[in-house]
Amino acid sequence: MALIVQKFGGTSVGSIDRIEAVADLVVKTRQAGHQVVVVLSAMSGETNRLVELAKQIDAQPSPRELDVLLSTGEQVSIALLAMAIIKRGHSAISLLADQVGIVTDNMFGRARIAQIDTVRLQQELQQHHISIIAGFQGRDLEGNITTLGRGGTDTSAVEIAAALGADECQIYTDVDGVYTCDPRIEPKARRMTQVTFEEMLELASLGAKVLQIRSVEAAGRYTLPLRVLSTFKPDAGTLITYEENPMKNKVVSGIAHQKDECLLTIRQAPDGPATLASILSLLGEYAIEVDMISQMNQQTGKIDYALTVHSNDHLQALDVLKTHQHTFGAVEIESNTAVAKVSAVGVGLKSHSANAGTFFSALAAENISPLLVATSEIKISVLIDERYLELAVRALHDAFKLESDE
Amino acid sequence: MALIVQKFGGTSVGSIDRIEAVADLVVKTRQAGHQVVVVLSAMSGETNRLVELAKQIDAQPSPRELDVLLSTGEQVSIALLAMAIIKRGHSAISLLADQVGIVTDNMFGRARIAQIDTVRLQQELQQHHISIIAGFQGRDLEGNITTLGRGGTDTSAVEIAAALGADECQIYTDVDGVYTCDPRIEPKARRMTQVTFEEMLELASLGAKVLQIRSVEAAGRYTLPLRVLSTFKPDAGTLITYEENPMKNKVVSGIAHQKDECLLTIRQAPDGPATLASILSLLGEYAIEVDMISQMNQQTGKIDYALTVHSNDHLQALDVLKTHQHTFGAVEIESNTAVAKVSAVGVGLKSHSANAGTFFSALAAENISPLLVATSEIKISVLIDERYLELAVRALHDAFKLESDE
Repeated sequence: MALIVQKFGGTSVGSIDRIEAVADLVVKTRQAGHQVVVVLSAMSGETNRLVELAKQIDAQPSPRELDVLLSTGEQVSIALLAMAIIKRGHSAISLLADQVGIVTDNMFGRARIAQIDTVRLQQELQQHHISIIAGFQGRDLEGNITTLGRGGTDTSAVEIAAALGADECQIYTDVDGVYTCDPRIEPKARRMTQVTFEEMLELASLGAKVLQIRSVEAAGRYTLPLRVLSTFKPDAGTLITYEENPMKNKVVSGIAHQKDECLLTIRQAPDGPATLASILSLLGEYAIEVDMISQMNQQTGKIDYALTVHSNDHLQALDVLKTHQHTFGAVEIESNTAVAKVSAVGVGLKSHSANAGTFFSALAAENISPLLVATSEIKISVLIDERYLELAVRALHDAFKLESDE
Repeated sequence: MALIVQKFGGTSVGSIDRIEAVADLVVKTRQAGHQVVVVLSAMSGETNRLVELAKQIDAQPSPRELDVLLSTGEQVSIALLAMAIIKRGHSAISLLADQVGIVTDNMFGRARIAQIDTVRLQQELQQHHISIIAGFQGRDLEGNITTLGRGGTDTSAVEIAAALGADECQIYTDVDGVYTCDPRIEPKARRMTQVTFEEMLELASLGAKVLQIRSVEAAGRYTLPLRVLSTFKPDAGTLITYEENPMKNKVVSGIAHQKDECLLTIRQAPDGPATLASILSLLGEYAIEVDMISQMNQQTGKIDYALTVHSNDHLQALDVLKTHQHTFGAVEIESNTAVAKVSAVGVGLKSHSANAGTFFSALAAENISPLLVATSEIKISVLIDERYLELAVRALHDAFKLESDE
């Protein structure tokens, strides 16, 4: 008998029919002899509906009150699932953050879980009740309702699983696992049965949307076995592991890509260490995150800088840089949103230096020129013209032989 | 400076526009120098929408989980109103039952408030914050969410006002006060500026739907000044008072009526005290409430009984009585739902015995025969053929000269 935490996202509980299907799935796990704790998101569309109501009143509503409003979404879904499980003759109980003792800091809208008091949950487990917990939410030390931000339910599930010492945390979603690349781009994409934590962390941060990066980080802190699987055709999915097996692991596990990129180029800034620092501080003041950074010294003694930001930040970043152009003395500021990032991720990249050659040769063979390059111990990323994105993904998937499991 | 508790019902917060209007009204009271505590219902339609969701899963959903579900309705409206008041530059904070310390028994769906811990509310008052409390709900001693049943928000408001020692509890609704009779039946109906608690209690129980009887009872326990007024055209409304002024009060204050009546007639039951007792016990077992009761001894030594139940209980009551007919020996059971109840209510009826004559003369003049009669110290009720309901209301309104304020 294992203790399993099962998390279901918004599309998995998006209608009464789907809630009934989730109830069947939970009951099936219970009947297989396991103990089950369930963590739920709001029904899909509900959070957006509530945000719309708030925005009709105030474009920037009180963050505390917005959290009071949004947290009703999960409260609805947990009550409905509990009813559906009870109807099937099993004991179930819906529980809110204050009833489970999920304590967060007081950063409304993006709170972090500080502590989970498992006394109540342990009681419910001892009585063989299926606990159904509202994800995405907590209470701060003063008892105010907080929410964890988008994707927060994954984090709730991981933190609850860790606090209970669960054997596995299962993230049920609308895809059936983690793929070697986006199957919509490369039909030969293969679902991985396993992926290492480090790789998953890179994949999540590089745009593989199957798991929120915060929940992967949290799982890593506790080395919690985390599994991604589909609500609609449940099978073994993809397991995130903490062991590297160089014999078994491929050099590269997957190809990730991200479209929402913006390349900013700052031309002919004066030489010296202060320039880049002041550019980054400036963007930081406006909470604009910078991803890739590159610089090129010119023969004139001037320096060109290139950096990428999320395309949502495009206009603001351009505006901020142009307004302060004189302070760091750049001659020209350019921006380009017709770019995309492609990355190869794999723990094998640590020890196989020849693979950088494979990577760039594959792109060169298709006449794709990198605009920017970034590497880490287990990934290589390039920024390219977005027209070549699909071509680059397929070329790299092919070059690293990802379609086969061997 | 007075401390005023303001309660707004579902239609008063039924849309974003209406929530904005309520925010204006609350702010206006604040700006007049008063301290304000607000108690809200769910947006109109929301509770029914949630009940429908639950019924799609289970026709008889778990009562505990239904309360978890339904309580989200008020949570949405309090958050939205708090946002609207904050946008107007005032400090407001939404508060749930557990944050305010509203403790109830554990009768899910029809819980009763056992205690309100006012420490938090007093703190908010001291800091001049406008507290906006979710009505209709509480927490039992184990921390489970409970709801108070239909109309529960009125009760929440009264109990909170009493616990805080408020100067007045204002019930804002979609009518502008208590009328001498239903204005849709008698256009000459007059809104009362005052009505005594005893009269209000009778009017509420006799079908004047402006206030729930439980909230009137609760106000009476604390002799709390209670005012009914309109959200849409706020003025002084109707004040429920605890002083009888025989010089000022009319003999009869108002004419109430109720259409959802069912007359049950049990023919030729054997004489003796046990028969009526067993009939009433039987209906009690099925939670069928009996309102009016009458009996008529026949020359044969047999007794006929007539009683009224709510028309919702018609078929079940008939079924129960017919099934057990042999146990109390009745020969025949009849039922009739084409009946209605009309009542005259007034503290003046205590001392003016001649008024029963006025009452029945007015009906006789219109050729309306009572089918059943019931009286209390301050009311006379008759059951009549429902076809004559409007005629009876108008005749009685006229006979007791209710159109004039003198």
